[in-house]
Amino acid sequence: MELMGTSLIGYGRGGVDGAPVRVKDPATGESLEPVYRVATPEEIDRAVALADRAAGLYRREPAVRRVALLRAIADGIEANRDEIVGRAMRETALTEARLVGELGRTTGQLRLFARVVEEGHWVDARIDHADPERKPVPKPDVRSMLEPLGTVVVFSSSNFPLAFSVAGGDTASALAAGCPVIVKAHQGHLGTSELVGLVVQEAAQRLGFAEGVFSLLFGSGRELGMALVKDPRVKAVGFTGSRSGGRALMDAAAARPVPIPVYAEMGSVNPVFVLPGAVAARGEVIAERLHGSVTLGVGQFCTNPGLVFVPEGQAGDRLVARLGELMAATPAGVMLTEDICRAYREGVETVAKLPGVRLVARGPREGAGLRGGTALFETDAASFLANRALGEEVFGPATLVVRCAGLEAMLESARVLEGQLTASVHGEADDWAGATELVDVLKSKVGRLVFNGLPTGVEVCEAMHHGGPYPATSDGISTSVGTRAIRRFARPVCYQDAPEPLLPEELRENNPRGLVRLVDGVIRLG
Amino acid sequence: MELMGTSLIGYGRGGVDGAPVRVKDPATGESLEPVYRVATPEEIDRAVALADRAAGLYRREPAVRRVALLRAIADGIEANRDEIVGRAMRETALTEARLVGELGRTTGQLRLFARVVEEGHWVDARIDHADPERKPVPKPDVRSMLEPLGTVVVFSSSNFPLAFSVAGGDTASALAAGCPVIVKAHQGHLGTSELVGLVVQEAAQRLGFAEGVFSLLFGSGRELGMALVKDPRVKAVGFTGSRSGGRALMDAAAARPVPIPVYAEMGSVNPVFVLPGAVAARGEVIAERLHGSVTLGVGQFCTNPGLVFVPEGQAGDRLVARLGELMAATPAGVMLTEDICRAYREGVETVAKLPGVRLVARGPREGAGLRGGTALFETDAASFLANRALGEEVFGPATLVVRCAGLEAMLESARVLEGQLTASVHGEADDWAGATELVDVLKSKVGRLVFNGLPTGVEVCEAMHHGGPYPATSDGISTSVGTRAIRRFARPVCYQDAPEPLLPEELRENNPRGLVRLVDGVIRLG
Repeated sequence: MELMGTSLIGYGRGGVDGAPVRVKDPATGESLEPVYRVATPEEIDRAVALADRAAGLYRREPAVRRVALLRAIADGIEANRDEIVGRAMRETALTEARLVGELGRTTGQLRLFARVVEEGHWVDARIDHADPERKPVPKPDVRSMLEPLGTVVVFSSSNFPLAFSVAGGDTASALAAGCPVIVKAHQGHLGTSELVGLVVQEAAQRLGFAEGVFSLLFGSGRELGMALVKDPRVKAVGFTGSRSGGRALMDAAAARPVPIPVYAEMGSVNPVFVLPGAVAARGEVIAERLHGSVTLGVGQFCTNPGLVFVPEGQAGDRLVARLGELMAATPAGVMLTEDICRAYREGVETVAKLPGVRLVARGPREGAGLRGGTALFETDAASFLANRALGEEVFGPATLVVRCAGLEAMLESARVLEGQLTASVHGEADDWAGATELVDVLKSKVGRLVFNGLPTGVEVCEAMHHGGPYPATSDGISTSVGTRAIRRFARPVCYQDAPEPLLPEELRENNPRGLVRLVDGVIRLG
Repeated sequence: MELMGTSLIGYGRGGVDGAPVRVKDPATGESLEPVYRVATPEEIDRAVALADRAAGLYRREPAVRRVALLRAIADGIEANRDEIVGRAMRETALTEARLVGELGRTTGQLRLFARVVEEGHWVDARIDHADPERKPVPKPDVRSMLEPLGTVVVFSSSNFPLAFSVAGGDTASALAAGCPVIVKAHQGHLGTSELVGLVVQEAAQRLGFAEGVFSLLFGSGRELGMALVKDPRVKAVGFTGSRSGGRALMDAAAARPVPIPVYAEMGSVNPVFVLPGAVAARGEVIAERLHGSVTLGVGQFCTNPGLVFVPEGQAGDRLVARLGELMAATPAGVMLTEDICRAYREGVETVAKLPGVRLVARGPREGAGLRGGTALFETDAASFLANRALGEEVFGPATLVVRCAGLEAMLESARVLEGQLTASVHGEADDWAGATELVDVLKSKVGRLVFNGLPTGVEVCEAMHHGGPYPATSDGISTSVGTRAIRRFARPVCYQDAPEPLLPEELRENNPRGLVRLVDGVIRLG
């Protein structure tokens, strides 16, 4: 595929009038070809107009067609794997193994949603039959199911150039739900975005979908994003990125004459609690696993553990010492973008100066390009409780150990935490009886509770929830991983006494799609 | 039960320091006893603090306990039916038959949610089992289900003193989900609110629930409401009322440091489309049914039909003439409150002066108290399309007929409609083939599509959806009637590799509650 640097608008291309932007190789600082063009206001309008027109047509496509589209995109990504991975390596400095894995996750997500749409149960079909004899008034026939919201705008993430980008989880779930998608590419990996965008565009066109079911816009800064979020034809937004970026979109969406939902995943510090039994039994093993999680992908994960609560005492000391050794011996990795690298370095400097904080270890910082050296800090529970800045995310391979005199200090610390994507608890069998209250407090703060594991490596499956109370996500209710994600882009539509031919297939009496439905209050398998 | 006029805070009472307010009998203008006291800032704080403390305890109550609470409230309301209905009649001027029916609906809702919680399937339990052998990394055990959000504030409606008030659908669904509830009583029926509040308070206390699981605050204006919505301990809001009131709450909730969801049902004009075959075959019957729906409860329903699209020509003329006769012959009913009556009268005057609008009929306006006389207006599709003010809600027994030259004019009109709770279409068998596009446009605008029926009389059942795109509701996704309403007050919580004893019952391996669960991607009946 040839990279052209112009936005993909419906089945055409944007022009070259927009301001030029380039992607740099973060490992070398070299500017990569081609020059990208920021989408102009006219181009944005064209993409939205096409999507708006396509929405009514795409909504009416039978499920089997949406399934075909999702699978064709997955196939197309696999067919172009080497080219996509090669470009992504240059743009992000992530390793080939990581990117091959992420590509597999991306196609896996697309196929998972294809299966969900093929099975069709997600629409939550419900039927309550009429009772013309009921007194004092006859009972009508009432049926309802989830139907698509309309055009969805997706903001790609910086740190997952494939799985949370052009054809990532937000796009897959929105297309699965029956919504056209306009993606704003992340400026860190425009070439990767264009390659994947071409795959989606080609698949949609080849299968004969209405033009506008997908567009990909290039841009930088927040102007493009704000124009999209404020457009009255846009019905929902998916976002993965920083808290400031996500909150700006939330505020703009809430201030619209017609507010729309913004599903923003804004990361978190993912606290890890090591209980007394666990630190005694296997503190050093936990240190090794923590090290792997903190430094994975140069720490650039929403689920990166940024706070570790460790008991005071010798066993805890050994855990911290071992973690420090490993961190100190970890070479500095290349970070994704200049902004991320700068913010990381500043974040580390800020934490180092906070009262009560001790630097345990810093890794080497040498190497060409945008290097992020590891950092391990330590503080005590009283300092942590006294200073909320210690609970803020530093995006990168740094973590802060909070030493706790006992479970009570852990519990108090848990109580002041903000909303989190995850919390992890390490315990032995005899730890759990004393940890009920801690687990209960953490449940109220997080989307996912991990036991004896690390938060990185989000499993893509039906039961996964990648969400959590604000500021981890915008709404605390939605997920951007796992099949519940499809529900974000749909709403119930109810039919009262509808003639059979006007009902969607999913609600027809003879259940042609074999759906699980709630009929007269009873769940019935197709 | 003795009315005291002070807020119900936990298992106690507010004081008499707050400003005094009184309810007037809208039929006579007489001030009713007792004097009510506006909740003071200290009382609001106490109610929220109690709810916040109760949240953690109530969340942990087993389902069977929540079921008992919901049923006890229903039983208590029935046991005090005569007293509650008698007071509501004086405060609202609604008829005894209506209020007895509404009371039955209210207890029916409570019992419906009791059944939903008893069955337990609503929690959407999901399990993906571990696979320690998977390459390249072992698969963890992942389980998730819906758990309660925390304290919910409910704003009672003016027009349903029972079914959308203190123990109405919002309260029932929030308590069912496991959330404490603080109700702001509507100033139009404070005595009814106190009576029902006492029933809830007594039931919760008798069954030994944590104090704060329910409070009822009296107040007027928006101060009390704003204090509640801005309180960081409040996690979600349910509201039924005006667009301006709902939007003010939405804006305040969105501007919080930690935004929360506001589920506001703000009413709509509920357009009715009469297709050519239907107007020819039974235009006068439709006129009679429309008249019943427009004037029901003095037109004070969110689902009151405020726009009727009727074909030009003689059959349509006969429909309009018959509807006019009936409207002109309808005595003026007593409206709920001074504000509602004033707004209705002003609304009718405003519509009468709009360009292209003809007054077809006005009913008599005589009678003591706050009377709202019927009004029937007519305009043409071109005027309707030229003036969006004609699509605005006039809350009361008025409606506007829009005459359309053909289906195309109906379609164009449908396209400019705002979001609606409902739309209704009247057609004969041979109308439907030509109405596909109209039905499709309406689907994208409404929460419920009614065929050959009227929108009033919302059936309370599993399949009902009482929602619709903004401005009908705040989010276009949630419903305040039907069992999906419980989901508004819950979010998924995910457990990874959790020790069995730390899992909620709903997620334990042996499925002790016999739930329908999604296990390894397959739906399994308990």
